[in-house]
Amino acid sequence: MTHLPALLEEHDLAGALEWLETQPPYAIADEIARMDAVESVITFRLLDKDRALEVFEELDPVDQQQILQGLRDQAFRDLVENMDPDDRARMLKEAPAKVAKRVLAGLSAHERQMTAALLGYPEGSVGRYMTPETVALQQDLTVGQALEVVRRRGAQAETIYTLPVVDRGRRLTGVVELRELVLSEPGAMVSDLVVTEPPRARATDPAEDAARLMRETNVLDLPVVDSEDRLVGLLTSDDAFEVIEAADTEDVARQSGAEPLERHYMSVSVFRLSRVRVMWLMLLMVAATLTVSVTQLFENELNAVTELALFVPLLIGTGGNSGAQAATAAVRALAVGEVRTSDLFRVIWRECRTGLLLGCMLAVVGLFVGSFFVGWDIAGVVAITLVVICAWASTVGGTMPLLAKKLRIDPAVVSAPMVTTLVDATGLVIYFTTAKLVLGV
Amino acid sequence: MTHLPALLEEHDLAGALEWLETQPPYAIADEIARMDAVESVITFRLLDKDRALEVFEELDPVDQQQILQGLRDQAFRDLVENMDPDDRARMLKEAPAKVAKRVLAGLSAHERQMTAALLGYPEGSVGRYMTPETVALQQDLTVGQALEVVRRRGAQAETIYTLPVVDRGRRLTGVVELRELVLSEPGAMVSDLVVTEPPRARATDPAEDAARLMRETNVLDLPVVDSEDRLVGLLTSDDAFEVIEAADTEDVARQSGAEPLERHYMSVSVFRLSRVRVMWLMLLMVAATLTVSVTQLFENELNAVTELALFVPLLIGTGGNSGAQAATAAVRALAVGEVRTSDLFRVIWRECRTGLLLGCMLAVVGLFVGSFFVGWDIAGVVAITLVVICAWASTVGGTMPLLAKKLRIDPAVVSAPMVTTLVDATGLVIYFTTAKLVLGV
Repeated sequence: MTHLPALLEEHDLAGALEWLETQPPYAIADEIARMDAVESVITFRLLDKDRALEVFEELDPVDQQQILQGLRDQAFRDLVENMDPDDRARMLKEAPAKVAKRVLAGLSAHERQMTAALLGYPEGSVGRYMTPETVALQQDLTVGQALEVVRRRGAQAETIYTLPVVDRGRRLTGVVELRELVLSEPGAMVSDLVVTEPPRARATDPAEDAARLMRETNVLDLPVVDSEDRLVGLLTSDDAFEVIEAADTEDVARQSGAEPLERHYMSVSVFRLSRVRVMWLMLLMVAATLTVSVTQLFENELNAVTELALFVPLLIGTGGNSGAQAATAAVRALAVGEVRTSDLFRVIWRECRTGLLLGCMLAVVGLFVGSFFVGWDIAGVVAITLVVICAWASTVGGTMPLLAKKLRIDPAVVSAPMVTTLVDATGLVIYFTTAKLVLGV
Repeated sequence: MTHLPALLEEHDLAGALEWLETQPPYAIADEIARMDAVESVITFRLLDKDRALEVFEELDPVDQQQILQGLRDQAFRDLVENMDPDDRARMLKEAPAKVAKRVLAGLSAHERQMTAALLGYPEGSVGRYMTPETVALQQDLTVGQALEVVRRRGAQAETIYTLPVVDRGRRLTGVVELRELVLSEPGAMVSDLVVTEPPRARATDPAEDAARLMRETNVLDLPVVDSEDRLVGLLTSDDAFEVIEAADTEDVARQSGAEPLERHYMSVSVFRLSRVRVMWLMLLMVAATLTVSVTQLFENELNAVTELALFVPLLIGTGGNSGAQAATAAVRALAVGEVRTSDLFRVIWRECRTGLLLGCMLAVVGLFVGSFFVGWDIAGVVAITLVVICAWASTVGGTMPLLAKKLRIDPAVVSAPMVTTLVDATGLVIYFTTAKLVLGV
């Protein structure tokens, strides 16, 4: 099947319209996300009204506001009025003030109020992702009465599968699943089906923590409460999924020493791509001048045994790789909750032994490889350095993310490149010092 | 609150029992996953029967089979009979043949049949993760009749929120959500509520693709069909979440040049930790001998201008970082579906320009930093090398994951360390060649 951009490029309007009518909304959203601002608005306008809303809901906030800016008033109002309040709040956050004002002005009073409430929560908090439209039940209902409440108020709610149970003061006392109601006799009491003390999140908690809690507890939706334990919304599993995916993408980018891209990889400009990368690259290069100083410090040794220079890239490369492995493992284990900051000393001990073991294995190979290029004495220096460097790099790599977390810095900022750069400089010291001791230069 | 290991270490049995009675199942599972084999079985035996099943369901397959091995017959049978068929199939896959045989022998005929069917699907396929226990509806029912079917057969099913609709030959014709049934009049027809041509997966498809499709289409559960489009099960969103999390963990590990750990980071042995890392580390070190050869090749230039050696770690480090950024971005964009293999040339063009831009910015800083240590001529060589190395590294880093995918290799195998190692050797060639041309040595 021909892709949309090809059809547009050939000015095949009939073909493009047919493509847009037959493809599912997520596939259309995918194509739009890859386009630049002008193309995406043109394509969007080709959609009929119902499909337009479906496609719009699949887009990222940044793409959404780009499209809104290109729409006339009626189409604009229809779209924003029909969005979920949490999606709308997130989109508004990304929009320029002018667009945001236009959005809020166009909304019905009810929708405007909900959106404004969500915008009151801090960025990245549960409140920004939850849906405020829930069906809450009182504990003293029968199953039949409860189902009646669900029927009456369910059309408004984003989900009716998880039904929070609240007391007279709207304080969360439990949760009942729609499944339980449907499978029970109408005369049974809701109170007999309720799960009391359910896992919950505060609206001001970080959304990532709440999403991870949902994963651990395997609940479909998580009740969200305020500081007095009053129900304010539900975090649904698709929003939780989105939160975790965004957090993982951010972690992955940070691990390579880059800031996360806020938009689709194929649609951001080269300048933006460079901007998210240049800061760390620059910082790391400046930090790497330490290696220049260290090498200068040992210039005499290097001049006395020029063959030492041959192994510098191999040794610091191996040290860097070994440190990167440990750092990446530690960052991931922290992210999914396998390692806690209180495990610091156990992690040091684990990584130090792992690094030593790895170093010994590499040293055997390194000795033979080295002897192929230089004498056994220098090859011996290379082998010893490999053992020490690996133990050191693994320990540093495994420890730094935990230390970062203790200092309340995102552990993912302790990226593989950062560990590599640190290990480069210290690895040189290890190498030249070993050479000095063994060769007596 | 004191943690469980501390209580056990102090032989505070009463304290441990109280801890086990008051903590939620996932927290207990978390502690058990961190323990060694003996500790975990002892802890598990302290749980009462109902809690034991809840905790057991939260554990990973490898931990599950470890615990089963330590249980007596009755407790053993109770546990496995009550597991979900898909969880049981995955656990069996990890178990030694002896344990697997004991499990299958202990099951009721019905459960054994379902498990055997799931085990027939290839590893990592949708069939291994789906639940075969669904409530399927016929299209010609009224809503009232459909709800009656759900009530009668729902207790057996893992979920009743997504109800696949099938024809007389059990071929999937649509999907209806329980939500729609509950919110409609009993006299309405199911056929009016059905979503036709719903997204679906084949049981033999890779589970990761199906899970990503669920994310894109925002469905709660995905119908699973056989090669003739007959319904065989449902992939639920919690299983999809698990699939994606495992895939991401694997990608992250691969990106640092390590194989993924199959168990909890804190409970695996140092030998296992080393085993997942040593293969790539060794391979990369051997590949790094290329840098030794290259350095040897340019030994004359290096001896003529010994100051060139000062900048080797800085230059190859920066090239490596820049390549790692591009490679990581490309791997992630491929994983979440933002980049396709057909984008190869667009990615090359993007990364080449990005790398040039980054290189120019770094070169300005590099020139001044360099002039601090050496003369302007050598600093100039460093600056020029930075531009070329960054453009080259970004292009290579961004391209290799796409090429890997074209060759049907997991793109994540093109790890940052692999790109770094490749860029190390080629970077040296760039550096020394530039020096030769500029300085005329």
